[in-house]
Amino acid sequence: MYMSLNDALHWRYAPKRMTGAKVADDKIAAIVKAAQYAPTSMGLQPFKFILIENKDLQEKIKPIAYNQAQITEASHLLVLCAYTQLQQDHIDQYIQNIIATRGVSRESLDAFAASMSRFVQTQSDEQIKHWAANQTYIALGFALAEAALIGVDVTPMEGFSVQKLDELFDLPQQHLSSIALLAIGFRDVDNDFLAHEKKVRKNIDELLIRF
Amino acid sequence: MYMSLNDALHWRYAPKRMTGAKVADDKIAAIVKAAQYAPTSMGLQPFKFILIENKDLQEKIKPIAYNQAQITEASHLLVLCAYTQLQQDHIDQYIQNIIATRGVSRESLDAFAASMSRFVQTQSDEQIKHWAANQTYIALGFALAEAALIGVDVTPMEGFSVQKLDELFDLPQQHLSSIALLAIGFRDVDNDFLAHEKKVRKNIDELLIRF
Repeated sequence: MYMSLNDALHWRYAPKRMTGAKVADDKIAAIVKAAQYAPTSMGLQPFKFILIENKDLQEKIKPIAYNQAQITEASHLLVLCAYTQLQQDHIDQYIQNIIATRGVSRESLDAFAASMSRFVQTQSDEQIKHWAANQTYIALGFALAEAALIGVDVTPMEGFSVQKLDELFDLPQQHLSSIALLAIGFRDVDNDFLAHEKKVRKNIDELLIRF
Repeated sequence: MYMSLNDALHWRYAPKRMTGAKVADDKIAAIVKAAQYAPTSMGLQPFKFILIENKDLQEKIKPIAYNQAQITEASHLLVLCAYTQLQQDHIDQYIQNIIATRGVSRESLDAFAASMSRFVQTQSDEQIKHWAANQTYIALGFALAEAALIGVDVTPMEGFSVQKLDELFDLPQQHLSSIALLAIGFRDVDNDFLAHEKKVRKNIDELLIRF
């Protein structure tokens, strides 16, 4: 069932056109789970995902994403959103989750909890926003890698109006902002010229400095 | 040889202590290759990686990373660096690479090249920096996923002085800045209390909004 990641990375590309066919629920679940299990700074997971399988809503999003065809030709859309601020609440819930999952005492986590609170207090709003966005991109990477491994096409997209998409989902009220869109579906090999093109990457000597 | 990503995600964690044993070169190459093949905005790959297998250099980096043990207990360190500005040169080389790889004409890429130049010109330095950092985090996600799949322990680290690490490698002169450190090695199960702890993640209902 699984390709090696090496094979998968050559198989995958970001389709500009998709067929509209439905991706099975278990495959969608696997992609979301990969994002859920991505590591994040201190384990804080400062993000939320919106999963859309609704043609009317996809039609509404299409003009917000400059009318790119994948938006409505995708089976599902996943909107990865990052928190724009981090409340003490978020840290408290995380600490509660560690206690419940690992059966450890609150006291054993006091130093860790304090260091997280200190981190949040010493960062500016802008810094928190970028830090949270960075973590969301790790989750995006995991979702992309998993999709490739299970043979599902996904197109990561930054080409949309963040402000308009945030408004559509009332994200500012939840202290969230959209980071990236993932169109999930099946490549349309007949209509997507990119389906037949070789992958272009910098060669390793250009990319890597060795010490 | 490969685990499913699901199994791999449960197997992986970020070791605080490593054994110092050497990771085989082909496994290091696979991890770097995953980062190389990560998708990026417009395919521009605005990053560079520093691969370190040198105990003296690791000793120098240790205080820059707040004396965390993994820095010197790791077999290798990978420093993921993002460009702090994007020159027209970068775009031109990318276009040359597409022509060489796909055998297409320069003219067929004129519109694409122009749209990339427009993108770079309309972004502030700050915006370019964050955009490049975001792409680097996708590559980090791919490196982490691949390491898990091939059973190599990696600890992604943001806890270091960016300024000092940048100075150590003369990164400002190259318009680069360090984004994240990856310690690559083998977990020290006897000395790392985290090796035996359950993974803590938000449950999916907390993380996912469905439409």
